[in-house]
Amino acid sequence: MSAQAAHKLMPDGSLADHYRAVRELSGALAAPLSDADATIQSMEDASPAKWHLAHTTWFFETFILADHLDGYTPFEADWPFLFNSYYESQGARHERCRRGMITRPTKDEILAYRAHVDEAMEPLIESGVRADLVALGCAHEQQHQELLLTDIKHALFQNPLGPAMFDKAAHAEPSERSEPHWIEHPGGIARIGHQAEGFAYDCEGPVHRILLEPFALRSTLVTNCEWDAFIADGGYENPLLWLSDGWGWVEDNAISAPLYWRDGEQFTHAGWQPRDPEAPVTHISLFEADAYARWAGYRLPTEGEWEAIARGQDAADAPAAFDPAAGNQLDRAAAPASQGGSELFGDCWQWTRSAYSPYPRFKPAEGAVGEYNGKFMSGQFVLKGASCATARGHSRASYRNFFYPHQRWQFTGLRLAKDI
Amino acid sequence: MSAQAAHKLMPDGSLADHYRAVRELSGALAAPLSDADATIQSMEDASPAKWHLAHTTWFFETFILADHLDGYTPFEADWPFLFNSYYESQGARHERCRRGMITRPTKDEILAYRAHVDEAMEPLIESGVRADLVALGCAHEQQHQELLLTDIKHALFQNPLGPAMFDKAAHAEPSERSEPHWIEHPGGIARIGHQAEGFAYDCEGPVHRILLEPFALRSTLVTNCEWDAFIADGGYENPLLWLSDGWGWVEDNAISAPLYWRDGEQFTHAGWQPRDPEAPVTHISLFEADAYARWAGYRLPTEGEWEAIARGQDAADAPAAFDPAAGNQLDRAAAPASQGGSELFGDCWQWTRSAYSPYPRFKPAEGAVGEYNGKFMSGQFVLKGASCATARGHSRASYRNFFYPHQRWQFTGLRLAKDI
Amino acid sequence: MSAQAAHKLMPDGSLADHYRAVRELSGALAAPLSDADATIQSMEDASPAKWHLAHTTWFFETFILADHLDGYTPFEADWPFLFNSYYESQGARHERCRRGMITRPTKDEILAYRAHVDEAMEPLIESGVRADLVALGCAHEQQHQELLLTDIKHALFQNPLGPAMFDKAAHAEPSERSEPHWIEHPGGIARIGHQAEGFAYDCEGPVHRILLEPFALRSTLVTNCEWDAFIADGGYENPLLWLSDGWGWVEDNAISAPLYWRDGEQFTHAGWQPRDPEAPVTHISLFEADAYARWAGYRLPTEGEWEAIARGQDAADAPAAFDPAAGNQLDRAAAPASQGGSELFGDCWQWTRSAYSPYPRFKPAEGAVGEYNGKFMSGQFVLKGASCATARGHSRASYRNFFYPHQRWQFTGLRLAKDI
Amino acid sequence: MSAQAAHKLMPDGSLADHYRAVRELSGALAAPLSDADATIQSMEDASPAKWHLAHTTWFFETFILADHLDGYTPFEADWPFLFNSYYESQGARHERCRRGMITRPTKDEILAYRAHVDEAMEPLIESGVRADLVALGCAHEQQHQELLLTDIKHALFQNPLGPAMFDKAAHAEPSERSEPHWIEHPGGIARIGHQAEGFAYDCEGPVHRILLEPFALRSTLVTNCEWDAFIADGGYENPLLWLSDGWGWVEDNAISAPLYWRDGEQFTHAGWQPRDPEAPVTHISLFEADAYARWAGYRLPTEGEWEAIARGQDAADAPAAFDPAAGNQLDRAAAPASQGGSELFGDCWQWTRSAYSPYPRFKPAEGAVGEYNGKFMSGQFVLKGASCATARGHSRASYRNFFYPHQRWQFTGLRLAKDI
Repeated sequence: MSAQAAHKLMPDGSLADHYRAVRELSGALAAPLSDADATIQSMEDASPAKWHLAHTTWFFETFILADHLDGYTPFEADWPFLFNSYYESQGARHERCRRGMITRPTKDEILAYRAHVDEAMEPLIESGVRADLVALGCAHEQQHQELLLTDIKHALFQNPLGPAMFDKAAHAEPSERSEPHWIEHPGGIARIGHQAEGFAYDCEGPVHRILLEPFALRSTLVTNCEWDAFIADGGYENPLLWLSDGWGWVEDNAISAPLYWRDGEQFTHAGWQPRDPEAPVTHISLFEADAYARWAGYRLPTEGEWEAIARGQDAADAPAAFDPAAGNQLDRAAAPASQGGSELFGDCWQWTRSAYSPYPRFKPAEGAVGEYNGKFMSGQFVLKGASCATARGHSRASYRNFFYPHQRWQFTGLRLAKDI
Repeated sequence: MSAQAAHKLMPDGSLADHYRAVRELSGALAAPLSDADATIQSMEDASPAKWHLAHTTWFFETFILADHLDGYTPFEADWPFLFNSYYESQGARHERCRRGMITRPTKDEILAYRAHVDEAMEPLIESGVRADLVALGCAHEQQHQELLLTDIKHALFQNPLGPAMFDKAAHAEPSERSEPHWIEHPGGIARIGHQAEGFAYDCEGPVHRILLEPFALRSTLVTNCEWDAFIADGGYENPLLWLSDGWGWVEDNAISAPLYWRDGEQFTHAGWQPRDPEAPVTHISLFEADAYARWAGYRLPTEGEWEAIARGQDAADAPAAFDPAAGNQLDRAAAPASQGGSELFGDCWQWTRSAYSPYPRFKPAEGAVGEYNGKFMSGQFVLKGASCATARGHSRASYRNFFYPHQRWQFTGLRLAKDI
Repeated sequence: MSAQAAHKLMPDGSLADHYRAVRELSGALAAPLSDADATIQSMEDASPAKWHLAHTTWFFETFILADHLDGYTPFEADWPFLFNSYYESQGARHERCRRGMITRPTKDEILAYRAHVDEAMEPLIESGVRADLVALGCAHEQQHQELLLTDIKHALFQNPLGPAMFDKAAHAEPSERSEPHWIEHPGGIARIGHQAEGFAYDCEGPVHRILLEPFALRSTLVTNCEWDAFIADGGYENPLLWLSDGWGWVEDNAISAPLYWRDGEQFTHAGWQPRDPEAPVTHISLFEADAYARWAGYRLPTEGEWEAIARGQDAADAPAAFDPAAGNQLDRAAAPASQGGSELFGDCWQWTRSAYSPYPRFKPAEGAVGEYNGKFMSGQFVLKGASCATARGHSRASYRNFFYPHQRWQFTGLRLAKDI
Repeated sequence: MSAQAAHKLMPDGSLADHYRAVRELSGALAAPLSDADATIQSMEDASPAKWHLAHTTWFFETFILADHLDGYTPFEADWPFLFNSYYESQGARHERCRRGMITRPTKDEILAYRAHVDEAMEPLIESGVRADLVALGCAHEQQHQELLLTDIKHALFQNPLGPAMFDKAAHAEPSERSEPHWIEHPGGIARIGHQAEGFAYDCEGPVHRILLEPFALRSTLVTNCEWDAFIADGGYENPLLWLSDGWGWVEDNAISAPLYWRDGEQFTHAGWQPRDPEAPVTHISLFEADAYARWAGYRLPTEGEWEAIARGQDAADAPAAFDPAAGNQLDRAAAPASQGGSELFGDCWQWTRSAYSPYPRFKPAEGAVGEYNGKFMSGQFVLKGASCATARGHSRASYRNFFYPHQRWQFTGLRLAKDI
């Protein structure tokens, strides 16, 4: 990829500016965390904040500096063993479930690692070397920014004292929501997948046609007070509403509400807060989303339906809401981000009924970074949109997020669909 | 459904004849088994043979006799608790993983239960009552016939003595295989799903259109000797060939060959037998099938591609091979059944890359039997075709079998696909 | 050991008679069981009845016939792999937790194995060869007779239909119990361990002196109605009554009553039966026995205290109650066996507070059979006495039975002790 | 207990001085740890360093200040939930296995908690209130000092970088060991248990007589190079050397050496260090100690034998070696502490073959602190002596340490015994 093409990846500025902004945001997100906060791991699915800071740096060091900067000296010879996530081609690595045991290096040492790599990266970026990998590394880091936020939320939630990493929102007024209506689509052939300039992951392509039957999506997401009605009606007690695996999950884990709920409160990055009834429900699993939709007499959208509606609304690159200076906006309806009145981006990821599978003629990216998306194509479901924790600029209509159907520590919610 | 329509479900004869034939086949399959053989359960996925005999009978008793035969007296009041599989609407039930603890009732007592229900069912069928449910019950029992065979195979395999339930094939000559070629399809819109007369499960419909890109399927299944080459090339040791979940499964379970393999032998219903190099490989997981395809430079077909090819070959109702008088044909290439030279039906189920999901506008069957297919639509993959253990008449192009990607105690194999 | 000495092992008759009687009793105990009943395994601690029949036979074949009968042909070359329990010196063996998978050999085939070995053994016994090992093998088989009874009880209990292997006791009248009193002991030095003629296990010796403080044991065992009072007083809900490991076990397993209890009934070899309030409580763990004693203001006896009292009562060889023709006596107070009014033998095994440890100067038996008792000396507790399921002639004051503190599928109960 | 009596508890100075010294040592031990180091928990058996600092403080606050200091205000109302260990009488508590999730309060906040409690405690101690509980609290804290050291060692060991908390010993010269000889004891009646003035735990009493057979203990502990010979002779591969539970543990955990060994090194508080061949082997389980003794032709001592020898040597209050200014002395033979040439105290805890059981007429301490020792009397084994990590003044001949037979993260070793 030429430097010129790389610039096209970043429509709003130079790639170097983009790199710098992304890297700074990671540091800013971790700023409220103590070394101990940044060290612990609350479950195997989550990683320590410190690990996110280091792993994203390892990505640039391993896939760019090591190969493309003559004479680059790795910061520490034995750190790659710690900070490789899952790239089998990059050798052995520390067991995922033991990431929370790494008290050394400290957070400060990892920030020094970041500075070391940034210093080496910046002239390389200016020179135009492997702009594609730089853009990929930035997108990768943006993904980890969201994970850093959701992982630390889960970690702090383990503490019975309910600590906060951001101040309580001073102005947490109840959301004002528009009345829901149905956004209809007549069906027919739609073009799906990444088709514009700018960066996208390999799994978002190639662009291809799909056949849709007529359908409609609701203009608004399901809210907390709607979810209260589901609970009140025994939704968590009626196996006929649930997928078989979902009911097993409910019973094995004694599930009776979304994650982070207690009484009228929910746990947030600002500690325990009153729950806004009109805000979109979040932290639900695919199983819960699916059961709710069945209870309500509707269904989940497919990923194709969602994307067709999103493209119709010209929302292909709608910005997500996250602003590190406004941490108190996390965990609530991020109304300003819901452009067009349809809450596609910036509130929460929306479960679809589509399994995460390869698109027709999908080819993984070449080289070691091809171990990025394709290897996860079993057992997971696609989520569309973007959440309040998604980095600005890291959302687009073709984006395919994916998680296992029981996972719910991300900001996950649902939008209803129906046949027409 | 009228009796007339019911006859259409069974093109080859009356529904009563069909019922009788299906019920007799179950008894015949279990005939070589002792009471103890028919009692044990080798893993949670499998059920005792006795349980299959009773559960299929419970289905007729519960969904037809109890509702539609005045004055019907259940055979034993406390047996439904034992023989309900998973129908939440039908009340509490014995824990699935404890089915192997039921030594009483004995096999003979369960055969008496079968006779009791058959006696009540037969006049009811003649009268035309709920022919749709009768047909469903017969299809359901045919599914359990295949499970009975695969479950007892797994149970006998646990025994270090390697016992046989059928005699060794006298004539187990090596298969003669046709040369593989590629069956091409130009792409475009195809009609998929059940669209003929005759019985089908709810999940096979509704018929709908899909868009296909040009592709080709190989005319023959992957064989044992091809699989030997995969092993010899380190296929089970190279993580880059595997889905991430698949590699985890390989490592956690120390997988290094298909199930039932040792040295040059494989375990069959006739005990340990030499492996036929030219026979299709069976007892592989989706993970293994996918890794093999990647290693070979191809991919798995989608379910739509497979069905489009099968319909093009007018094989919609190709018979599967199983004949209870020829148990020794199990576990090997059932060549006569592979009509048209393309081995679509009767050798083994063929994994597709398609997750088991609802078709557009899918509606579960009404009533309690609606808990039949839809509730399993997460985490599983579709298999197409039919195996050597599939009952004759229980295969069709629209059939959607489904299992989890790690499961391999069914007769599962693979057919390669490629883009063209 | 000379034949003369061997006779001393069997005071009531010849060793050959003893052998024959023991072997016949095993067959008689298994007679009410179907092949399927005798095949299943309900938990890892328990073994199939068929396995007990075969394993006890394997013991004679392996440790006597193979070494001492010229030209002996093993019944089946591959059966030892199945029927070795844990003798590491005897090579590899079938996994313990998979014993329930062995449908073949059938029960009848195992009875033929028994007959084959008996035919070879009997002349060998008459010739006086290794009478010590013959006596050991008989004692070993008597142990397995008790296990066969407790294991099959546990297996049948898994069945929601509550099947019976013996007829219901026609005359199950409530027990009449003598009033409890305290049997006092002045303390001092006592001689403990096997010290008479006759057979004993290696772990019962050597005889040695111990120092006792003054104490008393209650003359009667704790009864079902006493246990009811413990439950009514919240005994299972008060952690302060329990050992730490015991409370963990209560919580993890939601324990709230002895094993086999429901409402006013208990599960027996004759199915569900009303519970006799005056009968000794059975099927309790060490944890429960210990908690009860603490609740009652007393404690458990040590094994030395128990033996000192038993010797004082000259009960060294008190017969236990089991009579295969009276299966309906199982599971209830076996009053006739409780000689001397102190219920030492024949009701239930009595937990002591003594860990199962080696006696001073303990030496395991020589040779392969030395892997018999010593290797279990960690984590287990000693039980004294004998239960209603203990074979007649297989009880004595020096006997040391041992189980883990959570185990309770044996006929286990408790006798209270106190300091005086 | 009067203030006068309390002084007797502390022969070397006032109770207030003792309290102050103990409290200061805890702080000194934690000084080299970062907040993150002090936060993590490497396994359920271990606790975070921060938790030890807080829990020992909670003990004084809960059992002394809350009851005996009018108007005492708890430092933080919701911290007791976090820092109660297992006292059921003190209400609900944070799950043990989740202690590593508590990043807040920080280490500094816990040090402030310590200062707050110390300030309240000191005048109370001077006034003589509940000197018995003060002494108990100090002993309790000394136990936790040793746990803090062994737990943080285990935590740092999880880190592939092998971090150190103390500097490497500058002078780590190979130990010089005296030649082993046998210390003989003629047997007879010995008085065992706490019988002097000064503090002891409830489980060390009451003093009582036991009967001993003649025996001998080796004068030196088993060394690293002796252990190398055991490994070289296949000690970890021969099941006949092991207790049955021990062999299961070896196989399940692929054990092939003591904990913290690799090649010629061992992990220490100063990171990976060469192993001193003449130093006592440490970090072995009871299972390993027992197997070694059997392999060597000897046995483990009983706790009574060990104590009888120790009393004979008048070592009842031999000081252990730990000096916080000499952290580099940890993990090696602490030769100066091995008084009398018999290495009884100050090298490592010595496994005995005695299960941890109540002494005759044992009564737990009254009140809430009675939940201290007695509730652990199942499944554990007694260790005698003291290790290099035991606080000075916290060792005596009557001390009964106890762990499960598979545990080995303490400084555990073995001394051989034999019958004579």
